[in-house]
Amino acid sequence: MIVVMKPDATAEQVDHMVAHIQSLGMSPQVLVGTQRTVIAAIGDERQGLAEVLEPGEGVDKVLPILAPYKRASSELTTERTVVKALGLSIGGVKIAAIAGPCSVESEAQIVGLAKTLKAMGATGLRGGAFKPRTSPYSFQGHKEDGLKMLATAREETGLAIVTEVMAPEHVPMVAKYADVLQIGARNMQNYQLLQAVGDSGKPALLKRGMSATIDEFLLAAEYILDRNNPNVILCERGIRTYEEHTRFTLPLATVPYLQDKSHLPVVVDPSHGTGKAKLVAPMSKAAIAAGADGLIIEVHDDPEHAMSDGSQTITPAAFAGLMAACKRVAEAVDRTM
Amino acid sequence: MIVVMKPDATAEQVDHMVAHIQSLGMSPQVLVGTQRTVIAAIGDERQGLAEVLEPGEGVDKVLPILAPYKRASSELTTERTVVKALGLSIGGVKIAAIAGPCSVESEAQIVGLAKTLKAMGATGLRGGAFKPRTSPYSFQGHKEDGLKMLATAREETGLAIVTEVMAPEHVPMVAKYADVLQIGARNMQNYQLLQAVGDSGKPALLKRGMSATIDEFLLAAEYILDRNNPNVILCERGIRTYEEHTRFTLPLATVPYLQDKSHLPVVVDPSHGTGKAKLVAPMSKAAIAAGADGLIIEVHDDPEHAMSDGSQTITPAAFAGLMAACKRVAEAVDRTM
Amino acid sequence: MIVVMKPDATAEQVDHMVAHIQSLGMSPQVLVGTQRTVIAAIGDERQGLAEVLEPGEGVDKVLPILAPYKRASSELTTERTVVKALGLSIGGVKIAAIAGPCSVESEAQIVGLAKTLKAMGATGLRGGAFKPRTSPYSFQGHKEDGLKMLATAREETGLAIVTEVMAPEHVPMVAKYADVLQIGARNMQNYQLLQAVGDSGKPALLKRGMSATIDEFLLAAEYILDRNNPNVILCERGIRTYEEHTRFTLPLATVPYLQDKSHLPVVVDPSHGTGKAKLVAPMSKAAIAAGADGLIIEVHDDPEHAMSDGSQTITPAAFAGLMAACKRVAEAVDRTM
Amino acid sequence: MIVVMKPDATAEQVDHMVAHIQSLGMSPQVLVGTQRTVIAAIGDERQGLAEVLEPGEGVDKVLPILAPYKRASSELTTERTVVKALGLSIGGVKIAAIAGPCSVESEAQIVGLAKTLKAMGATGLRGGAFKPRTSPYSFQGHKEDGLKMLATAREETGLAIVTEVMAPEHVPMVAKYADVLQIGARNMQNYQLLQAVGDSGKPALLKRGMSATIDEFLLAAEYILDRNNPNVILCERGIRTYEEHTRFTLPLATVPYLQDKSHLPVVVDPSHGTGKAKLVAPMSKAAIAAGADGLIIEVHDDPEHAMSDGSQTITPAAFAGLMAACKRVAEAVDRTM
Repeated sequence: MIVVMKPDATAEQVDHMVAHIQSLGMSPQVLVGTQRTVIAAIGDERQGLAEVLEPGEGVDKVLPILAPYKRASSELTTERTVVKALGLSIGGVKIAAIAGPCSVESEAQIVGLAKTLKAMGATGLRGGAFKPRTSPYSFQGHKEDGLKMLATAREETGLAIVTEVMAPEHVPMVAKYADVLQIGARNMQNYQLLQAVGDSGKPALLKRGMSATIDEFLLAAEYILDRNNPNVILCERGIRTYEEHTRFTLPLATVPYLQDKSHLPVVVDPSHGTGKAKLVAPMSKAAIAAGADGLIIEVHDDPEHAMSDGSQTITPAAFAGLMAACKRVAEAVDRTM
Repeated sequence: MIVVMKPDATAEQVDHMVAHIQSLGMSPQVLVGTQRTVIAAIGDERQGLAEVLEPGEGVDKVLPILAPYKRASSELTTERTVVKALGLSIGGVKIAAIAGPCSVESEAQIVGLAKTLKAMGATGLRGGAFKPRTSPYSFQGHKEDGLKMLATAREETGLAIVTEVMAPEHVPMVAKYADVLQIGARNMQNYQLLQAVGDSGKPALLKRGMSATIDEFLLAAEYILDRNNPNVILCERGIRTYEEHTRFTLPLATVPYLQDKSHLPVVVDPSHGTGKAKLVAPMSKAAIAAGADGLIIEVHDDPEHAMSDGSQTITPAAFAGLMAACKRVAEAVDRTM
Repeated sequence: MIVVMKPDATAEQVDHMVAHIQSLGMSPQVLVGTQRTVIAAIGDERQGLAEVLEPGEGVDKVLPILAPYKRASSELTTERTVVKALGLSIGGVKIAAIAGPCSVESEAQIVGLAKTLKAMGATGLRGGAFKPRTSPYSFQGHKEDGLKMLATAREETGLAIVTEVMAPEHVPMVAKYADVLQIGARNMQNYQLLQAVGDSGKPALLKRGMSATIDEFLLAAEYILDRNNPNVILCERGIRTYEEHTRFTLPLATVPYLQDKSHLPVVVDPSHGTGKAKLVAPMSKAAIAAGADGLIIEVHDDPEHAMSDGSQTITPAAFAGLMAACKRVAEAVDRTM
Repeated sequence: MIVVMKPDATAEQVDHMVAHIQSLGMSPQVLVGTQRTVIAAIGDERQGLAEVLEPGEGVDKVLPILAPYKRASSELTTERTVVKALGLSIGGVKIAAIAGPCSVESEAQIVGLAKTLKAMGATGLRGGAFKPRTSPYSFQGHKEDGLKMLATAREETGLAIVTEVMAPEHVPMVAKYADVLQIGARNMQNYQLLQAVGDSGKPALLKRGMSATIDEFLLAAEYILDRNNPNVILCERGIRTYEEHTRFTLPLATVPYLQDKSHLPVVVDPSHGTGKAKLVAPMSKAAIAAGADGLIIEVHDDPEHAMSDGSQTITPAAFAGLMAACKRVAEAVDRTM
């Protein structure tokens, strides 16, 4: 931690900060510059230390040196994590393809679609039973009935089920049916939920909050990892920016950046990331070229009549084309799909 | 709803959309322009209709006409809402001043501070017993013990207690002690929590999500209102932008804008909104001049040793100065404080 | 400057950076922490040094300590700047009120309006002769004829003329007629223009770029100051964010922040900052309460028929009301208007 | 254009808007909905019409239907543009690779590097002679001397020269030496410069402004096209968002989006787009997979001693590796490189 004093900070203020840093168990070292004095605080830089030091008299700003996350960091865990659930494996050479409808609408729908997608190369099945909706007047999902339909689809196809859980008290129920518990972007900082998912022992697919920084994203993962659940998949799903021609802005540089800072696998959601069916295929290919460990894609037999998210959903036929195109790109970056 | 067809849309595609709109219970009207055909869909424009129409063949885009929220809207409820809890009243001529520490640290701390703040003109007491923290390694609050300390502070001062609730299952416990349930920015779209707070019947202080649009903010309020709980206070607490000199960007134009679109009262949080103690007073004055119905401010006897948020916390002495300054601005805009 | 080495940086890499820092005329000091080594580089921290050090082998990141601007900084120039042009004074106790149409449309229009505004208390007249327009098909301004009309309005009223200059080669012409040269948001980093305005010796009103940081804003001012032109007025006019209910997001915390970091006066443009006529008055009051040294406001006799920016333009009657309201707020913060 | 009236708009206000629309040469059609009246204005929807209609009494909002750009639009020009300059061709099957240093530092540097890059497969040479720098104290480029060095490098290698022009008055000079005139992100809305580059007849590489929308970007291109210069290359170079781990956020979905809306070729700048040398290769591959028509990349023999932008600059060895990797991705999407 580097404490930068104001240009007019007094010797007393510097001394006070030195004592304060010592009282926190760190070792202070004072550097007198041409215009400013800075104090380096050497030792374990726990999260939140900056905000403790910043209100000090004569302090201008505090600059952290170490990353605030530990278990998610590639500094301490150097071996890359590979998350496995049934036949779904995320983080190895083979790129995962998780596909399915936004909402589970009926057993016939989800089972039929699962068979189709499996035949096309999907390795996981997504589908919402609990739907977080911006409006209380929108369709909220079939809840446990939806989960049962997903379980049936798994029985019929062997595909691992990836589905969202929205509240801590639902975790046991969702964990009973699902293979991977998805935490949605709106819940990335719902800490009770993160802990409950951590405690469930099930693999977690954690979506980046729509305005989360990388530190916040990895600290959210830390909440799960900290419950001794090592199976966390990070999912870049687009951030909110001033851009309005896409639903969100999908920043693919986060893929190699996260893979450098963390040992956790990273998947990309080009459906939410763009909000436009037409952009899903090019951004899927781009995600793979950037190094993504998997894709999660919304597919529906009849997007025009989907109960949610129709405009970003592609048809099975489009998905088949996307898979063929993505396989070629995967090979060009020494991966398989 | 206005459906804009692509320039090369066929007559069949237009006919198909006309039929689709009719099947949804709306009345379509086709307008043939010089370059485009557009179809106006007249009738009740439920939320989510745009996403149903957008994937249609030949459709370029869909433009909603009506606001997606109803109960929060000033169109249907023309009388302004005044929320009351003990002596705290938000939405009338008198501007509310809710003050207190980020975290409740001890009974002595919170009771002593409450007395001081009350004497200085505060009309509500804030203080966190459950703390949402970015890192699992940060102080998470004293939980129920903290709530009891807050209740003691109320007994001693008569100040209404405003405190955060973070999970649906905590609502009954928090509601037992608190007068106003605060929903934090990270939980603005935690729909189970919104509904649980709605069901509690307690007044709710709903913080704007850090990247929420106005529509999303008012739809979150709608989740509470829809449970027949009319006592919702909107709180602007700053949004995430590219600016880095403040913790968030505090957009005060939302105050008059929200007051125009909604009948709900609007308070401003200049502490989180700026993240810097020095900016709290000027932004408090600005919020009042912009028409805010209240302020919510972090105050601590010793910000340097606060357990959280020290850098944005002001001292009681600074709060006294702020109150005096704000009173003058309040009078200049025909309010009291 | 603090150079943070990677956790696995070698002793050779640290030595190399130490030598590199010395070769740049700075004095390096090595601090060995528990997990990282950091090197403090003591001495004059010129702008761009971080990007010179960052590519070094074994370097993780570089943290600047000093502000990159000098002449704009309140550290070196402690007396606040007051910019004067005719009767217009910006930076003292009296708050400036610069008003006028977006575009100068005709001599009758601008002279008539100037008289009206002067009577209502305006201390400066704004009006565009050169108009930067997003589209080549929009009205581009009356150019030199417009400048002459503005000069006539000054003759008739004594109001100082504030008008935009868009290209370095126009500076002499605009300087012939105008009292204050405005640099638009889109040109904030048009360095040739900044230098030409600096060389003109005329006071400059520099608008913040719509995605400029505070450092970039003050460095743009530095380009003017560096040509020995001390008369720079900073103008906050809103930034681009994800918000869509207003044209831009107007972040008033920049007013006290800029006044703390710099000695230059700060004015606010609530017309562009909101894009909505209805929000101009509340944000004008808020700007004054936040400590602004002036306002710049679009006024037109008939906004519905204005040649540009009608939706954010207020009528003279509304301006009169705004002035009366702002005077009261100004007094409440010990200013006059 | 769709004019949405307020819920309480009077019949007189509707009639007034109908007359106003007619007076503007458009044909109004009134649609009475269940809660609102909307007026469709049919006819040529010129840019800026929305702002003319929006201030009308009783108007809530105005929704444009048509894109504001014409010459840049793929609706009117259906054949894709291929821009050619010497051996450089942008927009066909072969993906362009423009590489070179941020700044031209010496003749030996640029000629030597050009030879190296040419041998590695580069098809264009970039290098700054005029450097737009945030600070007046940073290196500003060798100006005409730098242009001469670039011309020498072209003579020696045959590579087309791509270099930035910063002011309208420099256009003739830069056009004398360069093959493609680059307009920087900070100048994307410097309209005099756009027109001067348009008039030069030289191909233009137009960088997206760091907070420009797609409409603004294509309208900037329109300024060049409107001077009968059809040779415009669009360049996505990253936008400013709240993300701080990269210098900018590089939104690759703009590549296919722009290619759908416009016939102009699109190149990507992963150097500025990320600001980090390590991310240049993955984002280059991703850009190609997303469909980019070219890359523009900063390469320097010794990034640690580059006069600018060292942290985002790669070495020739890294460029060779990048080219080999990109060729494989290009083939996987049926392109060559």
